[in-house]
Amino acid sequence: MPEQKITSAANPRLKGLVGLRRRRRREETGRTLLEGYDELALALDAGVRPDELYICDDLMADPRAQHEVVRQARGAGAEVIRLSRQAFEKVAYREGADGFLAVVPSVGVTPRELTLPDRPLVLIAEGVEKPGNLGAMLRTADAAGVDAVVASNPVTDWGNPNVVRSSKGTVFSVPVATATTAETFAWANERGIKVVAATPAATSLHTDVDLTGPVAIAVGTEKEGLTDEALAAADMLIRIPMSGKANSLNVATSAAIVLYEAVRQR
Amino acid sequence: MPEQKITSAANPRLKGLVGLRRRRRREETGRTLLEGYDELALALDAGVRPDELYICDDLMADPRAQHEVVRQARGAGAEVIRLSRQAFEKVAYREGADGFLAVVPSVGVTPRELTLPDRPLVLIAEGVEKPGNLGAMLRTADAAGVDAVVASNPVTDWGNPNVVRSSKGTVFSVPVATATTAETFAWANERGIKVVAATPAATSLHTDVDLTGPVAIAVGTEKEGLTDEALAAADMLIRIPMSGKANSLNVATSAAIVLYEAVRQR
Repeated sequence: MPEQKITSAANPRLKGLVGLRRRRRREETGRTLLEGYDELALALDAGVRPDELYICDDLMADPRAQHEVVRQARGAGAEVIRLSRQAFEKVAYREGADGFLAVVPSVGVTPRELTLPDRPLVLIAEGVEKPGNLGAMLRTADAAGVDAVVASNPVTDWGNPNVVRSSKGTVFSVPVATATTAETFAWANERGIKVVAATPAATSLHTDVDLTGPVAIAVGTEKEGLTDEALAAADMLIRIPMSGKANSLNVATSAAIVLYEAVRQR
Repeated sequence: MPEQKITSAANPRLKGLVGLRRRRRREETGRTLLEGYDELALALDAGVRPDELYICDDLMADPRAQHEVVRQARGAGAEVIRLSRQAFEKVAYREGADGFLAVVPSVGVTPRELTLPDRPLVLIAEGVEKPGNLGAMLRTADAAGVDAVVASNPVTDWGNPNVVRSSKGTVFSVPVATATTAETFAWANERGIKVVAATPAATSLHTDVDLTGPVAIAVGTEKEGLTDEALAAADMLIRIPMSGKANSLNVATSAAIVLYEAVRQR
């Protein structure tokens, strides 16, 4: 397939790309943006098949070596389009563009569609609104070997470019799902997964409970924590000991502390 | 003391305030900016004595209740200046200004000036450049009851408004120090504090070592990790187990996981 080349920043095709920054457009197309060489390499290794890959040699750190990823993307079915620097900078959404921008299928299934091992470790993030926090939780989930992350009643979609960016591409390597809080807890219950909810109001410490079985760690929004609905439906409540003057850890930090306690126990 | 009132956004005094966003100006004056009601309340409780407090009733969430903090600041010696909304929005540096902005003495001593208990838990952050990461580490340090945070070879100063903001004010409640890496390790050695360095190259897991004594957890930059100088000077190297496809946890997340393992052991 011959490569296309776009030199004008006014090319209408680029407008479509910029449109994917809007959630509605992502939902209509089932597509999202993935920017950055490292992120693309990780996603390709995880089996992602980009529809389109926009590249700009002038912006690449090492075009010769990095073209291996271009070949890999083409092998996975991507149409490759070369952009002029000016055109690329129009469509890049992050600072320090590195010459790689792909259009990829959105991720996220329903919890019932997840394929899980016998004794899964799951993270449930309820209502989390900041893309940076969701991204940070995905990086931790990836490192901790979490089997799935479920966003319940999410404010942000998994395809949000700031989630993709702050996750360093792990949103494509960690299985992710979306559902209402009620659906999420019903699913966990059906699957025999014990939901352990982190809340400052709990009496048990996170280190006092058994996290070795099929378990889901649930965390809520930074401001309000988990909803009453989630707290009532949880199998156990735990808290992280806090001795400081401020009243809460960052939600992604809390998730990391409890997930790594589960890793330690397992 | 009668309150001053500034209604013009062109008032020269406001220019001085904006100047404190620059590091050089902070270093010349030994002063920094502290914005936000919650942050100010926390800092006042921690003993901070603001020089000046700029307020704007129109922007406050609950002026009647929040004026208690204004009285507290005045009691701690602060000159209180009322600003018009227009004037306040000129000097506010964060989104969602809430009507509180103080000029406070900068924090940060040398490690030798720190007052520590017998069996301290310390965090050493080497070369960390992102203010958001330093702020996140301070929040965790506050929650975990860390006795001091030392920035070695820092790229960012403790007075950076983005450190202050992302720390939620805990930069004023957790003792903080600054030194070169050589000075930091010499001080730890003198004080009998064992330095435990987190690096993916280590063979021991963070859960395998004894963190109950006088101990400092050292973390490096997100990109490069700790310098060879720091790794060579450390008493022990540890790693956090990572099973994922991406190659590293966020530095603030790594610090939190190891600090909370120390809390668990202690």
